Amino acid sequence: MTPLSERMSRIDTSKIRRAFDLAAKLTRPINLSIGQPHYATPEPILDAITKAMREGKTAYTPTQGILPLRERLAQKYKEVNGFTAKPEDILVTSGISSLIQLILLATIDPGTRVLITEPCFLIYRSLLKYFNASVSTIPETFTQSDLDAVPPGDFRLIVFCTPSNPTGYVMKREQIQNLAKFAEARNSLLVADEIYELFDYEKQFVSAASIYPNTLTLSGFSKTYSMTGLRLASAHGPTDVIKAMTTLQQYTIVCAPAPVQWAGIAALDLDMSSYVQMYKKNRDMCVKAFTGKLTFPEPGGAFYIFPQIGENEDTFVERAIAEKQLLVVPGSIFCSRTDSIRISYATTEENLKEGLQAFLELLGKL
Amino acid sequence: MTPLSERMSRIDTSKIRRAFDLAAKLTRPINLSIGQPHYATPEPILDAITKAMREGKTAYTPTQGILPLRERLAQKYKEVNGFTAKPEDILVTSGISSLIQLILLATIDPGTRVLITEPCFLIYRSLLKYFNASVSTIPETFTQSDLDAVPPGDFRLIVFCTPSNPTGYVMKREQIQNLAKFAEARNSLLVADEIYELFDYEKQFVSAASIYPNTLTLSGFSKTYSMTGLRLASAHGPTDVIKAMTTLQQYTIVCAPAPVQWAGIAALDLDMSSYVQMYKKNRDMCVKAFTGKLTFPEPGGAFYIFPQIGENEDTFVERAIAEKQLLVVPGSIFCSRTDSIRISYATTEENLKEGLQAFLELLGKL
Repeated sequence: MTPLSERMSRIDTSKIRRAFDLAAKLTRPINLSIGQPHYATPEPILDAITKAMREGKTAYTPTQGILPLRERLAQKYKEVNGFTAKPEDILVTSGISSLIQLILLATIDPGTRVLITEPCFLIYRSLLKYFNASVSTIPETFTQSDLDAVPPGDFRLIVFCTPSNPTGYVMKREQIQNLAKFAEARNSLLVADEIYELFDYEKQFVSAASIYPNTLTLSGFSKTYSMTGLRLASAHGPTDVIKAMTTLQQYTIVCAPAPVQWAGIAALDLDMSSYVQMYKKNRDMCVKAFTGKLTFPEPGGAFYIFPQIGENEDTFVERAIAEKQLLVVPGSIFCSRTDSIRISYATTEENLKEGLQAFLELLGKL
Repeated sequence: MTPLSERMSRIDTSKIRRAFDLAAKLTRPINLSIGQPHYATPEPILDAITKAMREGKTAYTPTQGILPLRERLAQKYKEVNGFTAKPEDILVTSGISSLIQLILLATIDPGTRVLITEPCFLIYRSLLKYFNASVSTIPETFTQSDLDAVPPGDFRLIVFCTPSNPTGYVMKREQIQNLAKFAEARNSLLVADEIYELFDYEKQFVSAASIYPNTLTLSGFSKTYSMTGLRLASAHGPTDVIKAMTTLQQYTIVCAPAPVQWAGIAALDLDMSSYVQMYKKNRDMCVKAFTGKLTFPEPGGAFYIFPQIGENEDTFVERAIAEKQLLVVPGSIFCSRTDSIRISYATTEENLKEGLQAFLELLGKL
């Protein structure tokens, strides 16, 4: 047996594994656990990948990503997100998890202080623990009082996700303005994971970089264009940070898949509004089903709703599988509470309807 | 400016960057610097990617990689490499650099002892330095005396590449047998980078895992099938090691591109022998050009030759660019010597002929 590094002792995937193992036994599950869109990747993107391959674009690209894509992303950041971006301050890579890994490798030593919002994407806390960062948390719905209550001292990074996984909460403009002032006082780089930015049902979404320049913006193609298996994401940020991440990418990821980078240019020209409308209807169905029965954070975006169920989540998840063939995700993967459930409504209307009914039946709240 | 982590101070890419900057100014270079095949990705692979995409295979795959590919790889490891492999002990990922990163993250703490052969691929030493490993070296042509001279004590990993980048040297069976005995005595995991295994002109290549079970075998699709920009590689190793690397992949790379994994199955069925013959002819041209004029390690495989030029490599590389528009790679990127040059013959016969002539003219050895 090869001895493992000390940091490996800080990784624990047992809970997710147990959920997957249980789920694997189901024949016809009502699946409300999936963290990716249910619609097919739009054809123009597949066409663009095929075209790029036939043109011989299957070799390494520059580490930082092809210039035409970075130029198109600079345009997108300006027009859609409201901040000026230079192609040289943009890094193209193979997924937001890769970006999280790169920024942590580039900036975190054991004991480095990081502030994160809760609930949050599993991977942040796992990787922060893995690199032995010193982590403080604030609720994602934080008020100025919450910021005032944060222990004194600098934070290297402040990491948040809006729209949020697992809650669908969209951070308010005023919150981001307050967070920017806090970041300035604490000498922090804001790290804004905006992977769900397309799904912004109330037009509340604000890109932090449009307010505060010292921001690393993480953007994905996965959730917007249903390209989770094609591995494409981008980051924009201060020149020195992007430089450090690019240097690291040279030694690790090397580059994002070449033909997919070319297809990214085509993707950015697509009108995805009908998909957003589809998920908005699903969001409304969830809200209607739960209002007056369960408490949940305001689901203004993404494709999740995060109700508190008033009982232990693990028992509930197992009951849901055993009694209703219903798959949902226990909330403590994302936060310290153990009484919440993440429901994904990235699915068909029929599947969602069936799932919500089963969910409420299990809670005796139908 | 965001402070960077302490480990970032141990990364230095200035030499490669300087070489690239100089090269970028050339209009029609004779390029013998490229570390990837010059031939197009075989059409059946592109067809298979397109087919997989049209079948909707564009979402996340299991972290470890799709089972059909791991099964086909198990068959390949048995039939081609000569060792029994189970699909559950195989990990599919996005490139050998990703595999190096995963094994180091999984096993290296600051001060962990690692033995590597020299000359070697740039990324090993950069990442080992980055993770603060304690590195010892032996020549890749090591004899039993070289092994006997290694300072006492255990090594966590012993890393080598055969066929080798940058020399093309193919490790002899006897060497691997001796290394296996050494590894057993020093409680080491052998890490065998076999990315150039296809290019084995004298049929000397031996997979270490066919001799010694405690081996992590790294295999790529990039060089064999000219898929460098498509991002596919695999590893086979002891169960606990593959488990740890897979867990880490969950949080970082997530998965290799889905349609490319499906195409990997098709790739493994292709007969690549005509490509090998093509590069063998090029290899022979280099050997003929240099024999009696320059010293170089026996280039039994890969697509590189590594002559000692008897003068400073940096000056030579700049002279080659300025006087002959010739692009070659300075050897100290790969080892401690500063008088060697890596020439890649992964190019057309015409380009190689022109380049070898220019090279010898520069040295006054035509």
